[in-house]
Amino acid sequence: MSTTISPLAPKKYPKMPVIEGVRIATAEAGIKYKNRTDLLAMVFDAGTAVAGVFTKSKCPSAPVDFCRQNLAAGKARVLVVNSGNANAFTGKKGRESTALTGEAAAKAAGCTAGEVFLASTGVIGEPLDTTKFSHLLAGLVSDGKPDLWTEAAKAIMTTDTYPKVATQTVKLGDTDVTINGISKGAGMIAPDMATMLSFIATDAPIAAPVLQDLLSRGTAKTFNAVTVDSDTSTSDTLLIFATGKAAKRGAPEITDPKDARLGQFRRALGKVLKSLALQVVRDGEGARKQVEVTVTGAKSARSAKRIALSIANSPLVKTAVAGEDANWGRVVMAVGKAGEPADRDRLSIWFGDIRLAHEGERDPGYSEEATSTYMKRDDIRIRADIGIGRGKATVWTCDLTKEYVAINGDYRS
Amino acid sequence: MSTTISPLAPKKYPKMPVIEGVRIATAEAGIKYKNRTDLLAMVFDAGTAVAGVFTKSKCPSAPVDFCRQNLAAGKARVLVVNSGNANAFTGKKGRESTALTGEAAAKAAGCTAGEVFLASTGVIGEPLDTTKFSHLLAGLVSDGKPDLWTEAAKAIMTTDTYPKVATQTVKLGDTDVTINGISKGAGMIAPDMATMLSFIATDAPIAAPVLQDLLSRGTAKTFNAVTVDSDTSTSDTLLIFATGKAAKRGAPEITDPKDARLGQFRRALGKVLKSLALQVVRDGEGARKQVEVTVTGAKSARSAKRIALSIANSPLVKTAVAGEDANWGRVVMAVGKAGEPADRDRLSIWFGDIRLAHEGERDPGYSEEATSTYMKRDDIRIRADIGIGRGKATVWTCDLTKEYVAINGDYRS
Repeated sequence: MSTTISPLAPKKYPKMPVIEGVRIATAEAGIKYKNRTDLLAMVFDAGTAVAGVFTKSKCPSAPVDFCRQNLAAGKARVLVVNSGNANAFTGKKGRESTALTGEAAAKAAGCTAGEVFLASTGVIGEPLDTTKFSHLLAGLVSDGKPDLWTEAAKAIMTTDTYPKVATQTVKLGDTDVTINGISKGAGMIAPDMATMLSFIATDAPIAAPVLQDLLSRGTAKTFNAVTVDSDTSTSDTLLIFATGKAAKRGAPEITDPKDARLGQFRRALGKVLKSLALQVVRDGEGARKQVEVTVTGAKSARSAKRIALSIANSPLVKTAVAGEDANWGRVVMAVGKAGEPADRDRLSIWFGDIRLAHEGERDPGYSEEATSTYMKRDDIRIRADIGIGRGKATVWTCDLTKEYVAINGDYRS
Repeated sequence: MSTTISPLAPKKYPKMPVIEGVRIATAEAGIKYKNRTDLLAMVFDAGTAVAGVFTKSKCPSAPVDFCRQNLAAGKARVLVVNSGNANAFTGKKGRESTALTGEAAAKAAGCTAGEVFLASTGVIGEPLDTTKFSHLLAGLVSDGKPDLWTEAAKAIMTTDTYPKVATQTVKLGDTDVTINGISKGAGMIAPDMATMLSFIATDAPIAAPVLQDLLSRGTAKTFNAVTVDSDTSTSDTLLIFATGKAAKRGAPEITDPKDARLGQFRRALGKVLKSLALQVVRDGEGARKQVEVTVTGAKSARSAKRIALSIANSPLVKTAVAGEDANWGRVVMAVGKAGEPADRDRLSIWFGDIRLAHEGERDPGYSEEATSTYMKRDDIRIRADIGIGRGKATVWTCDLTKEYVAINGDYRS
């Protein structure tokens, strides 16, 4: 946890409601950090369904392997998360650690190891010493309380400067259901630290395959559309748990992803995912500005997203935003280097509502003054219209500042 | 031109020999810079063959379009290069500028516009006012001198901190032939400025199609294996000119790319290209260290190069090098995110000769002290062995420092 809170931190936090069937506990295990919580247990009542998405890294962490294996059965009773050590690139020792933690957590929660889910975030390559926290699990499981969502968000922080929470309550059928979520960190943005982690829970009675469908589709335009530095963690983990407790109050049990009654829930889940994803971007290391990049008129939506990510990941675009410089030439460059179909002479570029370039040339009405004023905002929108099709995509990033280099270039030891 | 010379600048420069059939002149046209040369003309005797490679950007500059068109005929009589304005993303005006300059240069050199080659580097999106320099071309062409190679390298600089030259003399048949080259800038590394430009000339009598073959193959492991910030310019241009004058002294005329007599020439050209490419990296903005990334044991050479570029372009790897931090966890991350076949549990990583990770775990013999000492060098070698095949590739980059962000985040106006 940094001592300086990001200037883009939320001005206020929502009061997090209780999700029936979820109990939470945190502890100071001293895995790496001192004087702060670094261990989270989230306990779920029997009957809880689970779905997840993970890093696409070819070098995933041991907990990612562990979760992927357990996900097939779609049942969860306990989630254990530690910060300070990622248990990534730890070979056989890493697998032993997850096996030991899985057994200890299963014993504590009275379930099978197949109903345990694990996540770790922190240093890569250091073996994770489970004896530092496995003895704490029984106490955490028995002491869990339903109203500790913000505490949960704090326990999983690494170099985050603020805890990230979001909540939505909507109708499923005629019954109110709630979705709570927490997240931490923006990919591989931190010195030695890794990972975006996010955990969502709902009391809606939704079967695991439906949850998986909702989550996979929901991440495409949220968590998979944000980038801080283009560096993909070994440990990215996003899990959603559905306790089904709202069924008692009349919520319909959903077993078909095409069920029309899912509309509100799907949109609400999308809002939670987007809120958490943007909070991650806004806490990107050294970030001073949020940048939204929209590409329109591309050959396809897929092509639009690739071009948008080329712009959002360009160090030159990101440093220009940091310097409050409306340097649209760098956007041209980033469109050109994306390798996607584009026609220079049909390209138009906007910063906010100001069109800077049109049909392959500087806009005749370009005003340096108006643009410079716009660039002083802390929320910058860049749009590029490729002019050759109907493909559209939006992604989010932050600026690249000297602080990013300072934080990541500091000596590790 | 920066006032502070890169600490990685060459300790000494070679004396550049004359290439028979090439005359050089430079001028202060005042296109953007004051009190320095910003215009270069290189004049070639009749019979000079030409080949070239260009940016893969989908938004190429007007001069790139112009050169591509003229390259088909394979003949060159004059090259005109300006710095200060890239004539990129200038639409119809850009095409008019290149047409006007082409005509003026052709008139001055007594050739056709199809034998003129152009390159521009500098601001993107500003129309290039050819009246600032077209009247100077006749004088430049008539006043050209053979021994101004270093002056030529200076005239094309933008934010480069030193001129970049290289030379080799080798046997073609039994006759000495010489290869001279100059280059500037590392891709899109500069505020508003763009472009890597490089121009090579030789007196060897080599036909244009053979030159093209030599150049295309030669760039794969040199200019196409260096990266400063992953940002591809709209204007990258590399041209090679062969005057053929060495034929008078007995050098054989080469018309077949498989001609066995090309061996020495091919290697010498490779050395010139590599020297110029590394000089570009070592002058990357804010660079304090050169980084060589070698990937071995990948599924194929192509896969190895992609993984190597994933490592070399990772902001986290580059900031770690800047901070003299042997953070091999970030190399694991970069291997994992490359999307290429990899097996975490077979991966090994070296910094210099020190093995830090082996078969998916931290090396048991890892010494923090030895590694920290190594990281203080200004020439860092990173190697990753993927352990699944025989594919191999090496790429070069520089570290990512606060100075890079400062230079690129400064206000444009």
